[in-house]
Amino acid sequence: MITDSIREGLPPNARRVFKGDIFEVWQWEQEMFDGSTHTFENIWRYPTVEIIATVGDKIFIEEQDQPDRKDIISLVSGRADQSEDMLAEAKRELLEETGHQSNNWRLLWKERVGGKILHDVHFFVARDCVQMQEQHLDAGERITTKLVSFDEFLALTEEPRFSSSQRFINHLLRMQMDAVKKEEFRAMIFGV
Amino acid sequence: MITDSIREGLPPNARRVFKGDIFEVWQWEQEMFDGSTHTFENIWRYPTVEIIATVGDKIFIEEQDQPDRKDIISLVSGRADQSEDMLAEAKRELLEETGHQSNNWRLLWKERVGGKILHDVHFFVARDCVQMQEQHLDAGERITTKLVSFDEFLALTEEPRFSSSQRFINHLLRMQMDAVKKEEFRAMIFGV
Repeated sequence: MITDSIREGLPPNARRVFKGDIFEVWQWEQEMFDGSTHTFENIWRYPTVEIIATVGDKIFIEEQDQPDRKDIISLVSGRADQSEDMLAEAKRELLEETGHQSNNWRLLWKERVGGKILHDVHFFVARDCVQMQEQHLDAGERITTKLVSFDEFLALTEEPRFSSSQRFINHLLRMQMDAVKKEEFRAMIFGV
Repeated sequence: MITDSIREGLPPNARRVFKGDIFEVWQWEQEMFDGSTHTFENIWRYPTVEIIATVGDKIFIEEQDQPDRKDIISLVSGRADQSEDMLAEAKRELLEETGHQSNNWRLLWKERVGGKILHDVHFFVARDCVQMQEQHLDAGERITTKLVSFDEFLALTEEPRFSSSQRFINHLLRMQMDAVKKEEFRAMIFGV
């Protein structure tokens, strides 16, 4: 389980004023520049994981409907609400959504969405995935998986249905602008 | 004042379960794919305005400290919590933060941050600003304004201290990739 202690990025005097299923609201008394104080407010959100999962020189993407949102393209991804071990959460999501496992995992980077929203997105690479079982979805998921080439993957920046962090889409744009960055990224993903 | 009616993007059966100073939490019973229901949760956040304010062929940027966050570079910007008239809110922020007014405003675009966070960011252009008064900051603001060229403005994508929506940074990156888009954007901002 996720502990209820103070969330990273909040001052020590912050207190949780609301706890929902996904979001928490935290407030604290902040000293202003003139010495007065004012109530400040941040949102904490369960961390999420996004996984660049490969089979050979291809990458898994998902075409999915959610109960309140149709026709999304995404990476293998999900909310890390079962444990604080992000790698374990990523392995669970990969297995449930694709039926695949990898024994070659690495953390690519961790992004904080930033500003007043404390939401960490952990990007993992899972190389050389192997099918272990059938896809196992819950009642809120309708997902079809598809393998795409590296260039098709980068071209997702031009796909309006692509749902990922805007910061990640910016990374993909930068790779299109810079051949060195693109080859570094290809090597990070495929290990060659 | 901002009304308390249902927020755009929520289903009719959503109810507000928490109201803070900046954020609200909304929940509803969502039907899943197997006919069961599950509580879904979204955050609503006061809209914000960001302003590309020009003087001649230069654009205002701000170097600022916030009480809980130091050393930020941003556009002229702020929270639209005084009224539902976004243009009026943008005019108020421009006058308070820079002492300037413009009589040549247009809405550039409106972005929805998206996913489970209902937060609209309204980007305005305010051309040919003229100084009317001194800067008038509140106790939570410490802002220095600066005029930069169009190319310096685009180069903010490489500035780690630049705080704007990632979607806007994404727009600026695309302009660096595409000379036609860059000139269209220049024309939108300066009107020539």
